[in-house]
Amino acid sequence: MRRRELLLASGAALTLTGCATPAALPELRGTGDLGVVIERARGTLAIVDTSERRVIAEVTGLGDLSHASVVFSRDARFAYVFGRDGGLTKVDLLARRITARIVQAGNSIGGAISADGALVAAQNYQPGGVKVFDARTLALVADLPAEAVGGKPSRVVGLVDLPGRRFAWSLLDADAIWIADLSEPSSPRVTKLEGIGRMPYDALVTPDGRHYIAGLFGEDGLALVDLWQERPAARRILAGYGRGQEPLPVYKMPHLRGWAVAGRRAYLPAIGRHEVLVVDTETWAEVGRIPVAGQPVFVMARPDGRQVWVNFAVPDYDRVQVIDTPTQRIVTTLTPGKAVLHLEFTPRGETVWISSRDDNRVSVIDTQSFATVATLNVDSPSGIFFTARATRMGL
Amino acid sequence: MRRRELLLASGAALTLTGCATPAALPELRGTGDLGVVIERARGTLAIVDTSERRVIAEVTGLGDLSHASVVFSRDARFAYVFGRDGGLTKVDLLARRITARIVQAGNSIGGAISADGALVAAQNYQPGGVKVFDARTLALVADLPAEAVGGKPSRVVGLVDLPGRRFAWSLLDADAIWIADLSEPSSPRVTKLEGIGRMPYDALVTPDGRHYIAGLFGEDGLALVDLWQERPAARRILAGYGRGQEPLPVYKMPHLRGWAVAGRRAYLPAIGRHEVLVVDTETWAEVGRIPVAGQPVFVMARPDGRQVWVNFAVPDYDRVQVIDTPTQRIVTTLTPGKAVLHLEFTPRGETVWISSRDDNRVSVIDTQSFATVATLNVDSPSGIFFTARATRMGL
Repeated sequence: MRRRELLLASGAALTLTGCATPAALPELRGTGDLGVVIERARGTLAIVDTSERRVIAEVTGLGDLSHASVVFSRDARFAYVFGRDGGLTKVDLLARRITARIVQAGNSIGGAISADGALVAAQNYQPGGVKVFDARTLALVADLPAEAVGGKPSRVVGLVDLPGRRFAWSLLDADAIWIADLSEPSSPRVTKLEGIGRMPYDALVTPDGRHYIAGLFGEDGLALVDLWQERPAARRILAGYGRGQEPLPVYKMPHLRGWAVAGRRAYLPAIGRHEVLVVDTETWAEVGRIPVAGQPVFVMARPDGRQVWVNFAVPDYDRVQVIDTPTQRIVTTLTPGKAVLHLEFTPRGETVWISSRDDNRVSVIDTQSFATVATLNVDSPSGIFFTARATRMGL
Repeated sequence: MRRRELLLASGAALTLTGCATPAALPELRGTGDLGVVIERARGTLAIVDTSERRVIAEVTGLGDLSHASVVFSRDARFAYVFGRDGGLTKVDLLARRITARIVQAGNSIGGAISADGALVAAQNYQPGGVKVFDARTLALVADLPAEAVGGKPSRVVGLVDLPGRRFAWSLLDADAIWIADLSEPSSPRVTKLEGIGRMPYDALVTPDGRHYIAGLFGEDGLALVDLWQERPAARRILAGYGRGQEPLPVYKMPHLRGWAVAGRRAYLPAIGRHEVLVVDTETWAEVGRIPVAGQPVFVMARPDGRQVWVNFAVPDYDRVQVIDTPTQRIVTTLTPGKAVLHLEFTPRGETVWISSRDDNRVSVIDTQSFATVATLNVDSPSGIFFTARATRMGL
């Protein structure tokens, strides 16, 4: 490769006299310990180093990040950021700049990347449906409008990747779950499950890619699909899940993507109640409830499943609680800062990173001692995403 | 950083006239899709790109790699290679060169890296014991001789990392399992479990870091330690595991590190028999046996647990079989080449890479269609290791 090509390829500035400006040369470094933090108020991404525990760069110009999520390329170099405004932005974590950006919808709440890293899919509220893009160029390769209800396409939620260039998602307005095989992106094969329950509002796939579970806003309970069955079908589980006989005010809907599976048990945020539900993943029956400090939002297992960490909706959103899974007891309550919006474990679980929006702070906490080992100044931080997600299904 | 420092730091050659030689500048790239293949006959490491499915570089001078294993730094940039001759070599996958190399023992068969990436540990046959090194410099930070038996330290096997800067290993000649906490490397705290069974020869830790299991060469059965207990103790499980009442010739001891956990079941290579054993990971009782084409060596689950892949000892080592876990049946038998020594899944399982030593070939196989999607020319390939291991426990 000639010098000019090399420098252009690496995204560096090139001076006319022939030598590169050192300051503009991106740092040669591994990408396994990188991550991003959403700075929700100003459309900016903070790039973080989880080894040195610091912000190494900021990338601006990502639009409305008031509800944003991120997936990573399989080489862990690029972040794909899905913004609330329908923006899809590809950010080079090494060159620390945007390499592609499109506004692909009017209102969007997330996306996924295929197991082989070739396809990025976005789920849209307005217009409804799913759009699929070439992960290199962000060129549109497949458009999958949702079933129309009352003349307009259903909003789409709960989009996840599955093994083998497949995706699954839920149709909020059409009470349906669709499973799409995009082995041939120009001719997607879509399996449609109808009547799965009223108003699916979010969903997840279990870490093994086997069970797709959608929460229902229109009724108590959840819809479960065993994707390993030859003819997948949805069945209702946990009829007691939801607001129940005595509906409580719900300050914030829990995020299902954060559900924790530890060993044979799953830990779920109850809706409205100050409880974490414990579910047996073989029978999908409830086997316990753990009282917690507020309405849970994210319920997340440390990668080894020994602990489950919980944050809460207003007014209890300054607290984080830790459940010891063998004893099912709360072992500590932390107050890392005001308005805890998200938490993310380093891939082997030695630390957890917690964003406190109203204190403009990300806290790095040792998961054994519960000591705060670092704090980072980040403007209105919300979601935290580490590149190890590239190696996991359904994240 | 000044220009000179930058170039030196990146490992590039520097010309006296001031401009770097372009060909010597390492490529700026992500490291999430890198891996290495051991070229066992000539002490060489092939660096591979799992996106492009090709060899991108070779690094020579690693000594005797006839039985080698590899762990990765948490930034996925450096490979630590443990050679049979006691060599420990740190290789920069970006600069494509050795950055540090020591010969730390006379005979060694593997190692581990702490969850925080700070410590690299090597297990030694000669002299026995475990040595722990600073992951940056390979400086010795802790020396843990094994218990002496008959005047010399026991050989050490089955070394694994555990959550929280801890390691566990087995003492082949002392019938013991040791668990060491190296939070303070200068004063390791060691818990010693004695009389765990005769001649532990290899071990593994389950993917959640909870159960440490050692195979016993001196008797049927295995030793199991629940590391989540306050006072861990070893108990014997699977009394039927082993050569049994009618001992069979064993052509190659199975590698326990390769054991597969899929859902609630573990799949184990029987010793000597043409069978894969199925074990319930809650009761640790045998719940089934699957007849296979030879004496199994590696029994490995695709990351989603839907399939288990098996290779074999001589004379059946040209074959690889695939078990469908829901039905417990062999769904295909492949013959990727002569002398299949190892297999490694890409982190999300869309392909598996298989080394065929005597055909000097690595085959990349689509795990859904079983089609060979690429072949790589590699000299006498044995172990294959991808950087995603940096994000997993016990690998």
